[in-house]
Amino acid sequence: MTPVAVGIDIGGTNTKYGIVDRNGKALAEASLSTPKYEDINEYVAVVSRAIMHLVDSVPQKVSIKGIGIGAPNGNYFTGTIEYAPNLRWKGVIPLADLFNKHFHVPVVLTNDANAAAIGEMMYGGAKGMDNFSMITLGTGVGSGFVVNGGLIYGHDGFAGEFGHVTAVRDGRLCTCGKKGCVETYASARGLVLTVQELVSASPDDSNLRHILPDELTPKHVFEAAENGDPIAKAAFESTGKILGQSLADMVAYLSPSHIFVFGGVAKAGEWILAPTRRYMEKNLMPIYKNKVKVVPSGLPDTNAAILGASALIWKELD
Amino acid sequence: MTPVAVGIDIGGTNTKYGIVDRNGKALAEASLSTPKYEDINEYVAVVSRAIMHLVDSVPQKVSIKGIGIGAPNGNYFTGTIEYAPNLRWKGVIPLADLFNKHFHVPVVLTNDANAAAIGEMMYGGAKGMDNFSMITLGTGVGSGFVVNGGLIYGHDGFAGEFGHVTAVRDGRLCTCGKKGCVETYASARGLVLTVQELVSASPDDSNLRHILPDELTPKHVFEAAENGDPIAKAAFESTGKILGQSLADMVAYLSPSHIFVFGGVAKAGEWILAPTRRYMEKNLMPIYKNKVKVVPSGLPDTNAAILGASALIWKELD
Repeated sequence: MTPVAVGIDIGGTNTKYGIVDRNGKALAEASLSTPKYEDINEYVAVVSRAIMHLVDSVPQKVSIKGIGIGAPNGNYFTGTIEYAPNLRWKGVIPLADLFNKHFHVPVVLTNDANAAAIGEMMYGGAKGMDNFSMITLGTGVGSGFVVNGGLIYGHDGFAGEFGHVTAVRDGRLCTCGKKGCVETYASARGLVLTVQELVSASPDDSNLRHILPDELTPKHVFEAAENGDPIAKAAFESTGKILGQSLADMVAYLSPSHIFVFGGVAKAGEWILAPTRRYMEKNLMPIYKNKVKVVPSGLPDTNAAILGASALIWKELD
Repeated sequence: MTPVAVGIDIGGTNTKYGIVDRNGKALAEASLSTPKYEDINEYVAVVSRAIMHLVDSVPQKVSIKGIGIGAPNGNYFTGTIEYAPNLRWKGVIPLADLFNKHFHVPVVLTNDANAAAIGEMMYGGAKGMDNFSMITLGTGVGSGFVVNGGLIYGHDGFAGEFGHVTAVRDGRLCTCGKKGCVETYASARGLVLTVQELVSASPDDSNLRHILPDELTPKHVFEAAENGDPIAKAAFESTGKILGQSLADMVAYLSPSHIFVFGGVAKAGEWILAPTRRYMEKNLMPIYKNKVKVVPSGLPDTNAAILGASALIWKELD
């Protein structure tokens, strides 16, 4: 029997799930619609059946050691999802308990960025590291902070919201209700908004002028930058400046050896990483300069969320 | 034999030292001039003799279990003081090793705010707490962050510099070389500078106009506020706003249950704490609101630094 962990990544649109062995190899994976299920009990029943179906689909016999779940507003201490704005289930949802009733194995729940951080530590670029940070630049901006070899959960299970640190006082309105959060600049939507501002303000010719705002993605901006587009390059410079300034503050809190960057915006590689590093260094206290490495995540793009969620179990069992 | 820890607090002006029992009772304490000794070996020899003198001075027989030291730029991992701008000993000073050669007991070194945080946990208001923050508002602004029951030291031993997080982009010039650091607003000097700015800008009558800038202290500002002085009240409001905004970001990183505030500026009590709380709450994400308590330190004013330094040893031995 091959020991495996189940990884479940719950997003507002899709729930991805898979079974993963101790070495981080996904033996099987699949996904289903999250908002299709208004009733949480029905959702858990459907996902549980789908997992058993995956187990049956692989050639080897497997033994499920636990279930790791990454979910928005996931609380590690209580195993609950609490008031997640992008999910249909309102209030406090005892998700870990509900899955435990189906599988009778340990269930560990936290937010997706924390799960990614543990994934980075188990399977990615952070192997053997005790003090590092994981930043996810996707639809939103998330973070997982590892200190002394463990995640920072805070007293309530909700620590590590780098996306909602103030980057620009009285800046862009954030979905959280605050203004100027890192997320409003360094998320996919933030980058697109910066492009739109630059397009309005600049006379420069740019291919990005010919893409409908709703259809513009970080990938378009990356491709334009690769083709020498001045608006695209300026957008990465501006985004890297704000991100780098905020990371300099993060270093003053945590002094990580590495900052791993993951997600749609991070796929632009050096276009975003180079200005981020430059502005971070510029804003660091002397004692921190030239020490902290800002690097792309070592997790695979395709199933990082499932790997990260499953890694929660191996970390817990270690 | 009563087991005791030696606590040493090294400041730019004075070195305070004492012998402290397991319950946080200082059996004896004293101080000497730090800058008097240009040679570090001479300094360590003098302090060591002074400690032995203290040991001889108490009625009971004591057994020294270890030496805890709080010092600027103190590195927990290496036991060294590194490039401390306010001390005469330049470069990297192997202070823990030097004291160990005199006493042959464990020597633990970290910065003074980290030592204060451990003191708060052992003897003050943070007993039994696993996730809290300590903020010291003195000549400078320092911090010690406890998560999962342990201090955040970072990969290099220098984490936890809340005083050098950017509070105001392109704001006041800091001694660290950066601009707008929390320390430039929330330290004793920052508060005094704010009073001076308000005095210049406002027509309000104020007793604070009649104190020479170099002689103005947080105590004067506190006393003026108690007497209804509008400049003093406005200075605390302004300082609390900047401090509270920055603490809101700190909560997004660490989500502590409590933030303990210590030092000269904190002695103004509710004059500084009330606006700090108000602006912190205003800038918190909804998920963190009305959870985090901002409270005065529970350590005694007079020998908190010695208690904190000695607590490092009990924490280490636990």
